Amino acid sequence: MNGRPQAFDPEPFRAQLLALVDWITRYYERLPTLPVLSRVAPGEVFSALPASAPELPEAFDAVLADLDRIVVPGLTHWQSPNFFAYFPANASGPSMLADLLSAALGVQGMLWQTSPACTEVETRMLDWLAEACALPAAFRAGGAGGGVLQDSASGAALCALIAARERATGGRSNEQGYQGGLVAYTSSQAHSSLDKAVMLAGIGRANLRKVAVDERYALDPAALASAIREDRARGLTPFFVCATVGTTSSLACDPLPAIGDICRDEGLWLHVDAAMAGSAGLLPEARAIFDGLELADSYCFNPHKWLLTNFDCSCFYVARRRDLTSALSITPEYLRNEASEAGEVFDYRDWQVPLGRRFRALKLWFVLRGFGLAGLRALLREHLTLAQAFGRWVAADPAFELVTPVSLNLVCFRHRAGDDFTRRLQARVNAEGRLFISHTALRGQHVLRLCVGQAATEASHVAAAWDTLRTTARQLQEEEGQGT
Amino acid sequence: MNGRPQAFDPEPFRAQLLALVDWITRYYERLPTLPVLSRVAPGEVFSALPASAPELPEAFDAVLADLDRIVVPGLTHWQSPNFFAYFPANASGPSMLADLLSAALGVQGMLWQTSPACTEVETRMLDWLAEACALPAAFRAGGAGGGVLQDSASGAALCALIAARERATGGRSNEQGYQGGLVAYTSSQAHSSLDKAVMLAGIGRANLRKVAVDERYALDPAALASAIREDRARGLTPFFVCATVGTTSSLACDPLPAIGDICRDEGLWLHVDAAMAGSAGLLPEARAIFDGLELADSYCFNPHKWLLTNFDCSCFYVARRRDLTSALSITPEYLRNEASEAGEVFDYRDWQVPLGRRFRALKLWFVLRGFGLAGLRALLREHLTLAQAFGRWVAADPAFELVTPVSLNLVCFRHRAGDDFTRRLQARVNAEGRLFISHTALRGQHVLRLCVGQAATEASHVAAAWDTLRTTARQLQEEEGQGT
Repeated sequence: MNGRPQAFDPEPFRAQLLALVDWITRYYERLPTLPVLSRVAPGEVFSALPASAPELPEAFDAVLADLDRIVVPGLTHWQSPNFFAYFPANASGPSMLADLLSAALGVQGMLWQTSPACTEVETRMLDWLAEACALPAAFRAGGAGGGVLQDSASGAALCALIAARERATGGRSNEQGYQGGLVAYTSSQAHSSLDKAVMLAGIGRANLRKVAVDERYALDPAALASAIREDRARGLTPFFVCATVGTTSSLACDPLPAIGDICRDEGLWLHVDAAMAGSAGLLPEARAIFDGLELADSYCFNPHKWLLTNFDCSCFYVARRRDLTSALSITPEYLRNEASEAGEVFDYRDWQVPLGRRFRALKLWFVLRGFGLAGLRALLREHLTLAQAFGRWVAADPAFELVTPVSLNLVCFRHRAGDDFTRRLQARVNAEGRLFISHTALRGQHVLRLCVGQAATEASHVAAAWDTLRTTARQLQEEEGQGT
Repeated sequence: MNGRPQAFDPEPFRAQLLALVDWITRYYERLPTLPVLSRVAPGEVFSALPASAPELPEAFDAVLADLDRIVVPGLTHWQSPNFFAYFPANASGPSMLADLLSAALGVQGMLWQTSPACTEVETRMLDWLAEACALPAAFRAGGAGGGVLQDSASGAALCALIAARERATGGRSNEQGYQGGLVAYTSSQAHSSLDKAVMLAGIGRANLRKVAVDERYALDPAALASAIREDRARGLTPFFVCATVGTTSSLACDPLPAIGDICRDEGLWLHVDAAMAGSAGLLPEARAIFDGLELADSYCFNPHKWLLTNFDCSCFYVARRRDLTSALSITPEYLRNEASEAGEVFDYRDWQVPLGRRFRALKLWFVLRGFGLAGLRALLREHLTLAQAFGRWVAADPAFELVTPVSLNLVCFRHRAGDDFTRRLQARVNAEGRLFISHTALRGQHVLRLCVGQAATEASHVAAAWDTLRTTARQLQEEEGQGT
């Protein structure tokens, strides 16, 4: 038994942790000046790592040195204040501490019994957020519903779809297998995770109707109603609608009251995906987009996007938890225990795809107590203000145009010189590294998306981003002999 | 914009981190003496937390105080050296540091481009482990296959099943929807995640054959072959077999060569689940149980169980990555980019259920470099030695009996006074808190499972566990007037 290592050795751990906190602090200091989008070529990081694992332990200093030498150049810096691409993925001090604590405690929350606090802190945190965002009472744990943390909005959408499939087939799909015939609906602007969910659940992409949207890219309820009628006429069974509050392309918000009425009349499961926009529910002045949520069977939003809680932390609520657990529950002998059999507790394994789960609710606990609701609201409001300002700058510049009105913290815009020029502009600024923006396609046009949501983004970064975009566009036009 | 908090503020972060490392160190000091199984009643933790989130920030000291007051009593201490239940969920110093770093970097690895290092370090780590465990060459990234980190063996099994379903239906399930007719096979001892996977994928539990096992609880290949024949005769289409190396109940190992031959002859996808036992692949002397793995289409094992890498870290390998990615890929406009289109890189989003993913490979990097393969092997060997010793003590005691020969680090045993007595013995020792063991059912008997795998478990803890069990059994018998 010689040479058996000590898994947790307090002295080296403390020294290594101090070295790491210094490293992290330096990294955050450097972040504003690092090129946001990584410049490594495919295979560069892989090749820089040895071909084999070391036989003997290596010094922690060597690992930190490789972190600088190999890993950092291969990062696209999501925590940079100049990261405006996709949607943000917030990190924060309290959240990092909680993830360290979760790793140290190392408990499993698959069953209530396997660590009651892991389940009950989570239930309470989901209730806290439900109250703070003024979510419908049905989503609180005190009634028939409740909330759970999922890895992502994709996981939540899949669970909602499965629960809806089971409800629609009277539980036959789980037991006898799915036999076809169901149809799901979402807008043409919905997230790709819906495609993935219908694939995984066996519904099939051909049976996911991408309903038309209006001029604001919001789902058209009349088109939904007519698609449902047509499918029923064909002998198919409509069963599930996913409405989006804040689409990925343009943060468009589907009209929940009209969609919810249709779902209620037709007996369809309504899932509402507000992965990004949901955090805005903390702001009373932004809550109009959530009107009608009381008609939803399930709801999801991601504090790991825009609420200072690092990935993964996706809040998933259901109005009737039995719909979910009866679709996802399996109970082998080795997991049977008194508390579960008595039905007194939540076993979150029955609310998700995987069996195992770590203590993710610590992150919400640390973040909500570390910043307070007031602090989080202040951050959200600053981002909204900055996005509105950026939108005004775009609208006022004759070389650019807003493609949609600014929705929450997202600005969709393009250069008036056209798609190809807009593409070249995007490629140039992303290559130069002072900011990173992504794009989407709206009405066939190449559209830039600037999302103000990174935890460290302040007014100066947004102003610099606009300056870079405008200046680079002028340079490009001059280079291309199109200078105005 | 007054009051906007700084998400990462170096000075308070450093001070809070120091307070937290002291807390963690004290927790690890106390762990050996804490009652392993939590004693809180349902609702106790939930009720101890305020009903609403705080409006204003709270001091970190207050959070740490509540951690002691509310959370710790509600934990079942998976990191206790006296935790012998279920399977272990290892944590370690290097792994904790890496999880903190992952939280601090806060990058997303859904696409190669969104942080190339997040993808390429992962690919290299999976290759390192493939080599260290002498896995078949097909699972290495240099050829047609490769590895990826999943959240859990459940997620891996679901992905394998979906890939197999797509292959069996020529891709029609994803597009047109699954129409029934497929049959999957596993042993009666397989993990419940297989039930869940066939439910989610729409195959149905009625179409998952639980094939009979031999006297060692290993799948009987003849029974598998005959089940396949019968299903074909019924007009059904066999498509998927999950073999287990190290079942949850008794660490039984299915005979891979015979099962693999059947799968090859019949054209079935073979997935091998070695969630717990896979880490033993590091030991050349334990590799016989993996013979035949070269016949598998996919393979999974969990370093988050028994390899000092905290949850979640499940290694999933496929022999032909196109089978997987063609079943799980969706590509919306806002995720299109040059590197992906050129096929030069892995986009791990297409290897898993969720879209988002964090930098989990850092944990493997830190653990493998922090301990070296030699250190990890020493730990595994000590656990194997201790389990064998415990097995000998049980076998030598006339009051107890071994139910199966000791397999790797798991001892399955019972008291000769019968099921009810064994149940009472288990309840008593778990309530007393000096250790925590779980149970299973084998041939209708109530069987105790003692798994030696927690990172801190040493000879003294295993000896104390045996002493507690033996002594408590005697006390119980005396109390019950059955003293021998």
